[in-house]
Amino acid sequence: MTEIRINRERLWRDLMELKEIGGYDDEATGLRGVRRLALTDEDARARRLVVSWMRQAGLKVRVDRIGNVYGERAGEEPGLPCMLMGSHIDTVATGGAFDGTLGVLGGIEVIRTLNEAGVRTRRPIEIGFFTEEEGVRFGTDMLGSAVTAGRLTLEYAHNLTDAGGATVKDELVRIGFDGDAPEIRPVPHAYIECHIEQGPILATAGVDIGIVTGVQSISWQRLTLRGEAAHAGTTPIESRADAGLAAAEVIVEIRRMCDSGEYGQLRGTVGDLRLLPGQTNVIPSEATLTVDLRNPDDTLMTAAEKHLAEHVDALSDRHRVTAAWERMARTAVIPFHEGIQDVIAETADALGLPYVRAMSGAGHDAQEIAAICPAAMVFVAGENGGISHTPREYSSPSACGNGIDVLANAILRLAGEV
Amino acid sequence: MTEIRINRERLWRDLMELKEIGGYDDEATGLRGVRRLALTDEDARARRLVVSWMRQAGLKVRVDRIGNVYGERAGEEPGLPCMLMGSHIDTVATGGAFDGTLGVLGGIEVIRTLNEAGVRTRRPIEIGFFTEEEGVRFGTDMLGSAVTAGRLTLEYAHNLTDAGGATVKDELVRIGFDGDAPEIRPVPHAYIECHIEQGPILATAGVDIGIVTGVQSISWQRLTLRGEAAHAGTTPIESRADAGLAAAEVIVEIRRMCDSGEYGQLRGTVGDLRLLPGQTNVIPSEATLTVDLRNPDDTLMTAAEKHLAEHVDALSDRHRVTAAWERMARTAVIPFHEGIQDVIAETADALGLPYVRAMSGAGHDAQEIAAICPAAMVFVAGENGGISHTPREYSSPSACGNGIDVLANAILRLAGEV
Repeated sequence: MTEIRINRERLWRDLMELKEIGGYDDEATGLRGVRRLALTDEDARARRLVVSWMRQAGLKVRVDRIGNVYGERAGEEPGLPCMLMGSHIDTVATGGAFDGTLGVLGGIEVIRTLNEAGVRTRRPIEIGFFTEEEGVRFGTDMLGSAVTAGRLTLEYAHNLTDAGGATVKDELVRIGFDGDAPEIRPVPHAYIECHIEQGPILATAGVDIGIVTGVQSISWQRLTLRGEAAHAGTTPIESRADAGLAAAEVIVEIRRMCDSGEYGQLRGTVGDLRLLPGQTNVIPSEATLTVDLRNPDDTLMTAAEKHLAEHVDALSDRHRVTAAWERMARTAVIPFHEGIQDVIAETADALGLPYVRAMSGAGHDAQEIAAICPAAMVFVAGENGGISHTPREYSSPSACGNGIDVLANAILRLAGEV
Repeated sequence: MTEIRINRERLWRDLMELKEIGGYDDEATGLRGVRRLALTDEDARARRLVVSWMRQAGLKVRVDRIGNVYGERAGEEPGLPCMLMGSHIDTVATGGAFDGTLGVLGGIEVIRTLNEAGVRTRRPIEIGFFTEEEGVRFGTDMLGSAVTAGRLTLEYAHNLTDAGGATVKDELVRIGFDGDAPEIRPVPHAYIECHIEQGPILATAGVDIGIVTGVQSISWQRLTLRGEAAHAGTTPIESRADAGLAAAEVIVEIRRMCDSGEYGQLRGTVGDLRLLPGQTNVIPSEATLTVDLRNPDDTLMTAAEKHLAEHVDALSDRHRVTAAWERMARTAVIPFHEGIQDVIAETADALGLPYVRAMSGAGHDAQEIAAICPAAMVFVAGENGGISHTPREYSSPSACGNGIDVLANAILRLAGEV
């Protein structure tokens, strides 16, 4: 069996070039970060660049109706379902150069390597990048992959709005990525996504490669607490209905739940909180906060959500505020396909690359595609504890190269060398 | 000595008419509120209406360079310093019909009553309304009175900006209240401000009238906590530097300090809090919050500030965030003039109106004017526990009438009936 090796320098150069689209100087870290929210002008420029790279690699490009972009390399047996690779190129507001892009640019590098080696495969090979994976602009993450896998309808996705009221559909049209390919894509033979780990497990184990066993349960909710505005100087402490104080107690309780161990490996984050009317000398009448919970155990996740809801009820009574929950997203633990995991493991063994198997702490497009075909992921170790969603996000050229080498050879095995 | 009685119906009609300028339907309470921030179009309309009422009452109107407006009724001995009444007509974003406006419209009603009774006085009588008393738009409260009393310079005040970057000077010019009278006003003989209590003391005592002994110490600070943005799903709890969590702990500690009694009658409020980047799945890198502390005891106020600073230092270390404090405002306890308090007390006695003496929980223009002449305040009871800075703010027509009757007769005594 042919073992192929990708061109690491070329991959790194592409990663660094794409990083400059949406690049900004981050004050908090003093580093160069990336701000390339989905369907913005920056995302559009990045999409055009990546499409040009796809075409240079000989891929036939199509755009579907939710803006997902696919590049196809023909197989020798055209009727067979394709082997799909992919990820995303949108970022959070304080992002780095690797999250998502590694899997997409790495996929293009796999194609170039196959082309240069003159390797043909039985199955077609496709690379996809999916719209609004981060969910930070339109509020629903894995949006493009959820639509193509049929979990969300095109109409629902098109009508989502950003903070300024712009819809997904309008923005797709505006940036010229309102494609005409069907949003429900043909079922692939299998899907492999290479992605940075965004956590410390691989670095702690001293390996570059992770084989992902699944994605932990994710719960996103928005909580609105309503009290009453009143004068900060004259209103006695005991007669207040301070929505901001109630919100602060929710944040502290979420951390306590994580620290307690009562809910296993629960992780909880309040990433956004807004107070109304938001004035120095007025007791807040309203507080709106997001609650992000993650858990590798479905039962403990349900228990954590139940406890938090009860705790909020109790503190709402105590502070004379009302509480309203809005569900933004909820996924159960999603296990990846064991057969595909094993192919990845055999590939890593053949390349002499040690690996560990671990569950993903973050959500990924692979969890959506897993609903329609066998899917798994390759993780690549990050430095600085694997920190991500910050300009400090960093994976070394050799770790990235090792990860894409594993991807390349696993894809080749599954696509069937002719 | 003449005892005069104002026209309560006319005063009430004016209060209700002014309330509609900036009026809005408040969702939280289902009531009609007032949103008339300083130097907005709404404030400009209100200013023009009040100026027209001043002119109809025969007052000679002048506007100074910080936009304070004065209306003067001549005295029989023109060289004497005037008796000054006044307050403000700007509101917070969720305001009511009485805060500030009672003292201004009440002052106009006093003049009308003197005119109709044909009463002349030795001293001139002036009504003033001061720019940006609330401080919610440009960040410094009692702005106009602080400038006229010489505590803040005109240049400093002119260069303050709102959240959109507009300066006080630009906004004064834009709304046509960039007057040419000197911002340092002639020293009055004395100043009396009638204002709603904005607290529960009078209602609890069962009286309509309060004689204000002084204003408690006020401390406004802005605290910025900086941690590090990171992925909410993958970053272990123990390796986070969560600025939002640190902010939540500050809010909870401020409430604990108030509840503990260790700092006397401390009141603490966090009215505004903003998180960056403010995304559901990103640990906040930065939290900025306002801290409003009030205390009727200077020593206990200083102790509270010191404790809070130490507490923030400790929790910053624990959460690996940095803390930066910015001083927005700080006033010591300001006692009002006992002689003027006694004149108000004699007046209330003569009118048969019971009263209590109490310290003010809120800041008022009177505390600034107290730096240049004898000053004191008349408080009027509010309903609903005296709640204010909300559309629920309400003082009855009879309480308002009683308060302005006290104001009228105290002014008449001090201005010297001819």
